[in-house]
Amino acid sequence: MTTNTQDPWLLTPGPLTTSLRTKQAMLHDWGSRDANFIETNRRMRAQLLAIADAEEHHVCVPLQGSGTFVVEATIATLLPRDGKALLLVNGAYGQRMAKMIDYLGRDYLMHETPEDTQPDIKKLQSTLIADPAISHVLVVHCETTSGIINPLEAVADVVARQGRRLIIDAMSAFGAIPLSAKTLQFDAVMASSNKCLEGVPGMGFALIRQTALETCQGNAHSLSLDMYEQWVAMEKTDQWRFTPPTHVIVAFDEAISQFIEAGGVAGRNHRYSNNRKILVDGMREMGFETLLPDPLQAPIIVTFKMPADPAFEFQSFYDQLKDKGFIIYPGKLTVAPSFRIGCIGALGEPEMSAALKAIRATIDHMGVANGAAKAA
Amino acid sequence: MTTNTQDPWLLTPGPLTTSLRTKQAMLHDWGSRDANFIETNRRMRAQLLAIADAEEHHVCVPLQGSGTFVVEATIATLLPRDGKALLLVNGAYGQRMAKMIDYLGRDYLMHETPEDTQPDIKKLQSTLIADPAISHVLVVHCETTSGIINPLEAVADVVARQGRRLIIDAMSAFGAIPLSAKTLQFDAVMASSNKCLEGVPGMGFALIRQTALETCQGNAHSLSLDMYEQWVAMEKTDQWRFTPPTHVIVAFDEAISQFIEAGGVAGRNHRYSNNRKILVDGMREMGFETLLPDPLQAPIIVTFKMPADPAFEFQSFYDQLKDKGFIIYPGKLTVAPSFRIGCIGALGEPEMSAALKAIRATIDHMGVANGAAKAA
Repeated sequence: MTTNTQDPWLLTPGPLTTSLRTKQAMLHDWGSRDANFIETNRRMRAQLLAIADAEEHHVCVPLQGSGTFVVEATIATLLPRDGKALLLVNGAYGQRMAKMIDYLGRDYLMHETPEDTQPDIKKLQSTLIADPAISHVLVVHCETTSGIINPLEAVADVVARQGRRLIIDAMSAFGAIPLSAKTLQFDAVMASSNKCLEGVPGMGFALIRQTALETCQGNAHSLSLDMYEQWVAMEKTDQWRFTPPTHVIVAFDEAISQFIEAGGVAGRNHRYSNNRKILVDGMREMGFETLLPDPLQAPIIVTFKMPADPAFEFQSFYDQLKDKGFIIYPGKLTVAPSFRIGCIGALGEPEMSAALKAIRATIDHMGVANGAAKAA
Repeated sequence: MTTNTQDPWLLTPGPLTTSLRTKQAMLHDWGSRDANFIETNRRMRAQLLAIADAEEHHVCVPLQGSGTFVVEATIATLLPRDGKALLLVNGAYGQRMAKMIDYLGRDYLMHETPEDTQPDIKKLQSTLIADPAISHVLVVHCETTSGIINPLEAVADVVARQGRRLIIDAMSAFGAIPLSAKTLQFDAVMASSNKCLEGVPGMGFALIRQTALETCQGNAHSLSLDMYEQWVAMEKTDQWRFTPPTHVIVAFDEAISQFIEAGGVAGRNHRYSNNRKILVDGMREMGFETLLPDPLQAPIIVTFKMPADPAFEFQSFYDQLKDKGFIIYPGKLTVAPSFRIGCIGALGEPEMSAALKAIRATIDHMGVANGAAKAA
């Protein structure tokens, strides 16, 4: 991978390591209302739709800010004020959607499972049957909290059969885990520039079913976060309603070009899956234990249980790895101490192998016999 | 000025031309929760406070997104749900604040003057006396719609004497037009990265009186736009609540360093005022007429009336100037056809003079005798 080799590799869930080519796209300035920028913006929106085979029925609505902004904006715009949401929650990002709807003051129910457990599809079905007021189901494709992959196809299937509408937070999965509008029925899928498409942070986007969006005028609670108005203005003028993060967008467009050149979703899935395999195999060799069984583990970020060896001290582990050129990520589990290592970004086999060597050297230096979570 | 000389000069109100050094800061990737980035973030927040002499009583709360996001977020957080705002409106950005409060469903009054007219201070005073329910006054420092400078000192004086609270949208003025917490009483001033501080777009910030902000828990209508929670989280962890636009922030920090090196507000005001003088003098020589009389004209962006000569066609004028390396800005006046030329960004005397030469060559080529707005 070609990046700026002066920087540590980011083994994080995004912001992540981007290619030098992506960063170099930001060495220019653009007028936000000028034709050249407008053309870039149009291309970006079209390519994002194509990644999910969603050109036919959906529109791409980008938004300034972080992924959370686009999730809140999309929920606020699509969930009517008298609607009711059912949230499938098994981590912090599901919980965050509940917090958003608390702000909105709209009605919702939660189906909660532990952080290492997928939602119960039978329970989903019975809940929908029992409560006809539920208009929308909200699910997180890959919960970055644990790294778990949720069963999107099964969820979408039940939601469609029960005649409800599906909104997918695919923030950390989009572009790396297949998701096609041709085989999956959804009203919206949200993601951001700085995850598996390997752009820099500063914008998100939603692919929204046009016939659904057309009915959403007046739903949103906020001028800035009104995805209906954002869409109408962009369709009319090809410009953003409010100042766009021009450099972020042009870098994103450049990142998407590289994504396509590298084989699209299949290519990215293959590289990230290989990264994950190298990482998990290597960590297990050192005795570290993953939170999740392999079938539930997305090729995005892996949660490791905190080693039991009293010689292991996380901050020192983090700092020593950073000195060796690798930045890992703290844990976010509520149930157990843990840390996380990402598989995504502009990195591959050499970097993952080098990270493992750095981890080995670090635990050796700390005098940690092995990474097992329970004392032998 | 050192920029990337391949790009056209942006004579726009921002996004604008940034220095090469600012853009080069984005050639790296940062972990958003890592110590190096946290240190940059801390420095940026401290320096923004210092620019307005506001270290003693205010805190700096940055926010992802465009300037509009931070204006909406600050109003929503500071204006209580049972508060009432008085808006001083003489352009699109004042109107936009009204639209935001419509979304919020809170109470407000407007004091509206034409786009070329400052608010009436006596009217402001009598309105405040007549309506004790008004808790907050909202004013735009420089209205980019026309380029008018509003009488901030006089407004602040009346608001303070009447015991109300002042919120200032200083988006296009901050850093170039003096504004000091030592001489001006305000609860909040909002601005963004991509105006007179010459960063790239993607974030805004508000300097907020700490004692006011402390009372604002629960006011905001939106999780993403809750400036109280944004502040509390940042004070606690030195991290952003949600993914920050890391590259934009590091570029902003670099831009602020250059701002300080170049003499801070005084230095920037001097350069921009000189840019404006060159521009206005040169345009008047060609017969163009400014919308505003000189005393009302901020050194930010100048509105010119559309020439009356039938040979003048704006889109062709714009395109030819772009071909010559200068991007200007369409008009936004509701009252009369116009266009705008900015004085801000990483440009000075040589660029403004070159722009004038390009304008002269363009009108000559179009066969426009002069730029007068009324036929002779």
